[in-house]
Amino acid sequence: MSRKEVLFQYYYEHIRHNIVNFLKWLVLAVLTGLIVGGASGIFAKCIGAATAYRDAHIRVFLLLPFAGLLIVFLYQKLGSQDGGTNQVLATIKSKDKIPFISAPLIFLSTLLTHLTGGSAGREGASIQFGGSLGSWLGKMAKLDEFDQHVMIMCGMSAAFAAVFGTPMAAAVFAMEVASVGVMYYAALFPCMIASIIASRFADGMGVNPETFLVVKIPELTIANGLKIGLVAVGCSFLSILFCILLKYTSKFYQKYLKNPYLRVFAAACIIIALTALLNTRDYMGAGGNLITRAIEEGQARPLDFLWKMILTALTMRAGYRGGEIVPAFSIGATFGCVAGSLLGLSPGLSAAAGMAALFCGVTNCPITAMLISFELFGFSGVAYYLIAISISYSLSGYYSLYKDQTIIYSKYKARYINRKTQ
Amino acid sequence: MSRKEVLFQYYYEHIRHNIVNFLKWLVLAVLTGLIVGGASGIFAKCIGAATAYRDAHIRVFLLLPFAGLLIVFLYQKLGSQDGGTNQVLATIKSKDKIPFISAPLIFLSTLLTHLTGGSAGREGASIQFGGSLGSWLGKMAKLDEFDQHVMIMCGMSAAFAAVFGTPMAAAVFAMEVASVGVMYYAALFPCMIASIIASRFADGMGVNPETFLVVKIPELTIANGLKIGLVAVGCSFLSILFCILLKYTSKFYQKYLKNPYLRVFAAACIIIALTALLNTRDYMGAGGNLITRAIEEGQARPLDFLWKMILTALTMRAGYRGGEIVPAFSIGATFGCVAGSLLGLSPGLSAAAGMAALFCGVTNCPITAMLISFELFGFSGVAYYLIAISISYSLSGYYSLYKDQTIIYSKYKARYINRKTQ
Repeated sequence: MSRKEVLFQYYYEHIRHNIVNFLKWLVLAVLTGLIVGGASGIFAKCIGAATAYRDAHIRVFLLLPFAGLLIVFLYQKLGSQDGGTNQVLATIKSKDKIPFISAPLIFLSTLLTHLTGGSAGREGASIQFGGSLGSWLGKMAKLDEFDQHVMIMCGMSAAFAAVFGTPMAAAVFAMEVASVGVMYYAALFPCMIASIIASRFADGMGVNPETFLVVKIPELTIANGLKIGLVAVGCSFLSILFCILLKYTSKFYQKYLKNPYLRVFAAACIIIALTALLNTRDYMGAGGNLITRAIEEGQARPLDFLWKMILTALTMRAGYRGGEIVPAFSIGATFGCVAGSLLGLSPGLSAAAGMAALFCGVTNCPITAMLISFELFGFSGVAYYLIAISISYSLSGYYSLYKDQTIIYSKYKARYINRKTQ
Repeated sequence: MSRKEVLFQYYYEHIRHNIVNFLKWLVLAVLTGLIVGGASGIFAKCIGAATAYRDAHIRVFLLLPFAGLLIVFLYQKLGSQDGGTNQVLATIKSKDKIPFISAPLIFLSTLLTHLTGGSAGREGASIQFGGSLGSWLGKMAKLDEFDQHVMIMCGMSAAFAAVFGTPMAAAVFAMEVASVGVMYYAALFPCMIASIIASRFADGMGVNPETFLVVKIPELTIANGLKIGLVAVGCSFLSILFCILLKYTSKFYQKYLKNPYLRVFAAACIIIALTALLNTRDYMGAGGNLITRAIEEGQARPLDFLWKMILTALTMRAGYRGGEIVPAFSIGATFGCVAGSLLGLSPGLSAAAGMAALFCGVTNCPITAMLISFELFGFSGVAYYLIAISISYSLSGYYSLYKDQTIIYSKYKARYINRKTQ
């Protein structure tokens, strides 16, 4: 062959390979978006129905201990190796597999947790069953290990997008969270497509995307900048506190309540007693009501954030399921709201910024935090959210909700460290 | 000391160190924001005045060859080692220094290029003199090598933010561009603060942030998704073509026009002749007029993108200064506009998506591309921009405007490759 023919052959092969690869991911992403989007839509509907039922029949709250026993029983029998969201993150970076059974398990146990008023989110469930469905689809398509990781991210982001209606944040979250400082851009195209399709599909099923109306956004002056900075400093310490509290609750349970059935039962009794003492239903479930009230009405009680934190730690570490992110949202929003009123800054705006900052602090995902704030609060308070997020990232240390998360580049110096979070 | 005292000492030191570090960066970021923001504001004003003067007195275009001679002379005498934006990227990753002289040099030569109607952007100039000012500030503050890198990023983002009025995209661009797939989050807080301050400061000086009004955004149906996908596929090939064209123009000049004075003079004559032949002023300068017309009015001539590409390559590789990104914007916008009308998709929307996609293709920075599109076009067409950007990223290969850019993770597989771009 002449040199020209060799070159032609080279480019031809190159382009052909690119196009085949592209089409493969297009098909897989569309499939993931439809399947995961559909499943997540049903999940979101069920969670909504469970919450509505609980609101109407508050006595189900007394069933919390028994729901806990059932959840522990299911996991003991069917999924004793299940490690929650953390396991999904670990599988993005390793050869581990996500067992398919974890999808229905997390679905059911999150539903039970919400129905009986445990303080837990739902995004952990979405991430886990999305990742598990994605992994399963990848196995069907006989993908290799690297592509399998992309499929897990793809499933995660589709589920996240469907439940929250935030496709952009969902796609970036899947790429950003496992190894902070490294973006797995190979997953960009499939994650984006799957997220957009999943969120549209869920939308079509009547799952409304969440948005919050932030009113009274003041001009960004130096004084206001410093005030939002103070709120963010508070949020970064709070995010460290939340991570430590979750960890020590775990340790406490392991030391004094070794038997998992006894543990979940005792925890549920403590939660019920605390709730009776506080005399409010506000801390049941994900805490969406707290968020809405803090952001849209600028209303929160001074200790809402503390109680939500304690009740979430008690619930989640006892064996209930659902995730810590939405509770983290409500902790940030209620704290931000209170801090804002104290400092004389619009409480609704501070609540929104606090929510984004706390999310960033506990997940170490600043880009996702930015995108979430645009998708949930709109674009007008953007400078405030950016300040809060970047301060919270740089002051929240190496703490995280996920013990297998790694921080690849130092938070303090532009250098490689590759350390696990605490 | 007892164990408690040791622990206390440890935490005390840790927190003190964190706070000192935080305050150090706050002060440096504010300073960078003010100094770079002020200088960039003046720069933007001057570029605006030069463009207005050229529009009013079109005969200055005939001075293009002489402006070129002057620029080459200045660089031969004062900055023969100057490597443009690429050099700034290289210094983020290495121990190289940016010479301070490069700031006034790039300022003046970009101004001359715009005044006499060369086809060039201005962001290259901003990035370079911002980086150079940041580096100089870091030297004043006696920072170590790692912090010096952060100061370069900080200066780059402040300048970018001041010139375009897009603080978010600016901050992320500085962290994303040098090593694609790695985010230098240690720079997040300083870059964000410097960008916000610089853009506010420039705003106060009367430099208006650019925004484009995208009208007629249709519902995202499957058909429209496929159409925007086709536009993006076109843009990704176009971005490869643009990079190759720039490279071969360089090679051509080096082969046939070795003497830099002769080169710039001959190139200017070709540019003048081509412009006379095409009988339009539209390709002079950055091409903002082409962008506005394409996005807001949905108007572009079929070959606008090709001529802008050729004239930019001829101008920039001959020795003129300013940058290739804004020309890339106008190439993407005009192509998107034409492709949109052919496919029956809103030409303004396609133009906006094409602009973001081409930017992503030539810089390999998808997150920056997303943020730029929100900041310039608003939030309503977001799904379209996301599709276009992610397709363009995955199909544009390892080509780049900057030869020292590295792609750390493969575009096709979730694995480490660490390869230089072409």
